[in-house]
Amino acid sequence: MGTEILKSIQRPTMLVDLQKARRNIAVMKAKADVNQVNLRPHFKTHQSTRIGELFREVGVKTITVSSVKMAEYFVQAGWQDVLIAFPLNWREMDIINRLAKKCTLAVLVDNASSMKFLSQNVQQPLGVWVKIDTGLHRMGIWWEAEEEILSLVTAIQNVPVLEYRGILTHAGHTYQTSSAGEAREYARTSRQAMLTVKSHLIEHGCQAGLVSIGDTPGCRLMNDFAGVDEICPGNFVFFDLEQWHLGACSEEEIAIALACPVVSKNTVRHELVLYGGAIHFAKETLNIDGCPVYGLMSEFEDGTFGNIRADCKLIKTTQEHGVLWVPEKIFNQYQIGDVVLMAPVHSCLMVQAMGEYVDIQSGEHISTMVQQIPIRR
Amino acid sequence: MGTEILKSIQRPTMLVDLQKARRNIAVMKAKADVNQVNLRPHFKTHQSTRIGELFREVGVKTITVSSVKMAEYFVQAGWQDVLIAFPLNWREMDIINRLAKKCTLAVLVDNASSMKFLSQNVQQPLGVWVKIDTGLHRMGIWWEAEEEILSLVTAIQNVPVLEYRGILTHAGHTYQTSSAGEAREYARTSRQAMLTVKSHLIEHGCQAGLVSIGDTPGCRLMNDFAGVDEICPGNFVFFDLEQWHLGACSEEEIAIALACPVVSKNTVRHELVLYGGAIHFAKETLNIDGCPVYGLMSEFEDGTFGNIRADCKLIKTTQEHGVLWVPEKIFNQYQIGDVVLMAPVHSCLMVQAMGEYVDIQSGEHISTMVQQIPIRR
Repeated sequence: MGTEILKSIQRPTMLVDLQKARRNIAVMKAKADVNQVNLRPHFKTHQSTRIGELFREVGVKTITVSSVKMAEYFVQAGWQDVLIAFPLNWREMDIINRLAKKCTLAVLVDNASSMKFLSQNVQQPLGVWVKIDTGLHRMGIWWEAEEEILSLVTAIQNVPVLEYRGILTHAGHTYQTSSAGEAREYARTSRQAMLTVKSHLIEHGCQAGLVSIGDTPGCRLMNDFAGVDEICPGNFVFFDLEQWHLGACSEEEIAIALACPVVSKNTVRHELVLYGGAIHFAKETLNIDGCPVYGLMSEFEDGTFGNIRADCKLIKTTQEHGVLWVPEKIFNQYQIGDVVLMAPVHSCLMVQAMGEYVDIQSGEHISTMVQQIPIRR
Repeated sequence: MGTEILKSIQRPTMLVDLQKARRNIAVMKAKADVNQVNLRPHFKTHQSTRIGELFREVGVKTITVSSVKMAEYFVQAGWQDVLIAFPLNWREMDIINRLAKKCTLAVLVDNASSMKFLSQNVQQPLGVWVKIDTGLHRMGIWWEAEEEILSLVTAIQNVPVLEYRGILTHAGHTYQTSSAGEAREYARTSRQAMLTVKSHLIEHGCQAGLVSIGDTPGCRLMNDFAGVDEICPGNFVFFDLEQWHLGACSEEEIAIALACPVVSKNTVRHELVLYGGAIHFAKETLNIDGCPVYGLMSEFEDGTFGNIRADCKLIKTTQEHGVLWVPEKIFNQYQIGDVVLMAPVHSCLMVQAMGEYVDIQSGEHISTMVQQIPIRR
């Protein structure tokens, strides 16, 4: 099937290997079960009700999303327990209230202003998590700011219609590390910080609620989940070069690739010009030997993509063009008119950019919410 | 009207100022007319039939696009003379043949293999340009490779159904310069190289055809177009921070902005967390004082956006989040729930990512082909 799919390709096409995705989900679910933590996968990576079904197959009932719009999309597809892991957007409060009628919905807050706004505008029972910063420094209350955390948790618990859930962190700084060992250490200290926050809350006679942690490298590399109640990684469903480079997955586990027609060649520079550029790969880079790389070639074998050719580097992308550098000795193996398979640096952003998958095993076309709902709506 | 539009914003929203876009178009058209070159604007920047109408208003009849799909979209909207300025994609030859029945279509080639493929597969009269590399090193035949160029031009002229148009370059290396003077110099030497190619062709008794050049900084900064027949810049319709930083436009000319709700604040770091991230801004960066910046704040005044606040920098973007650093002295002017206006680094990529505009003058919603046709189709 894979060979026929490649033959039929006319334009940059995002391929998924659903078998690999299923295995990735099974591995993470098993790890969650063994460690007795609830898996609340982040659906921002795949943004697809069809891929969501693969999670249902293994018994997942709780999910995480990154926008109110994404929550609406998955609630409509029957998901009943949804966490919007994004700072409360006051301007969408009416939609949040409507949605909270239809499902068990939860939101994040990290400051007193949003808490005050929420208490004055919430109309439906609504779950609330307090976002804690354990090192990413994007949002959240710094984990050592004991009084601020206590004050926010208490404020939530004082509003009857709000259901305090617990404390949540996204230790995304694991992505900034250069080795699996370092990422594991960041994840470990992040978990430790969360347990300290929990202890402080309990010491002050406060109901501490659940402890939730999130990132894929941490959940993949960590082995001690003691004290953690819930995990919400997302990327692990497909993985990508960033995760592989970090040591959080093997190359065979990467479940997604971009098929790109070769449209020109430069014999002097050993470059293939691909139909596949910034609007397809989404301009995320990986630093390899001091140079930014936008993707690496993936080999087609046994009807699917798999082995990464770390020596075949996408070194430039403009709107529709990609420039793929390949070593001299294999340059002549590739001709204009061929299709090459490329592993993405960041699968979440490529999925957003492409909006549709083709399963390399079955040829099934799988749409995402991007295709169904314009970005602003 | 602008104030009411900002009040109504719930999510990241791409704003356009059609009056500014009209002025930008008028300025470039006047420059083309004065210099007696044909303006064939690149429509990959706006990707919208509605914005296309603004070009029709000033008499533009010829356009450039970056994909076969984009050609189909604009032909359907009545455009009759379309150049696909992308290396010939063999896998779309059937669509190219179909489309060439409906309009005056032209394609680009830069190598003998694609030329051979084209001669064997073309079924309709089709215009062909030869792509010349004058310094960008993305695709095209290097301008000094006289024999290769001559051989390709001759091959095209020997196929009766192919209509040889001329030589074309995109001097996109002007974007890599650090000053308007340097960009102007690159554009000048690029034009000079094209004139040398033309002379060589004529010396060899070959019909040289037209000379086409393309990039916005070059077309904006250059004043001597002697020997040039056609220009195909695109970005100038909206401009962006990259063009402004380069000196190719003024801040008031930037005709596009992203309106982003403020969803959190960090008092210690003086950061506003915006609903507006990598999937909205598209992760293009500008280097300001050695740091990557994903956008700068634009001030709202007289019902539109305009003055750039170079001290209010979008320093981080993840999927949906943006982190906007603002100086301490103005930090308290911004509250959670506010909307801030952000100028994009690269308007073409933001348009692709967003798929819809709202005109800040009239409130009109304007869609792009992205919204109407999924990326792969």
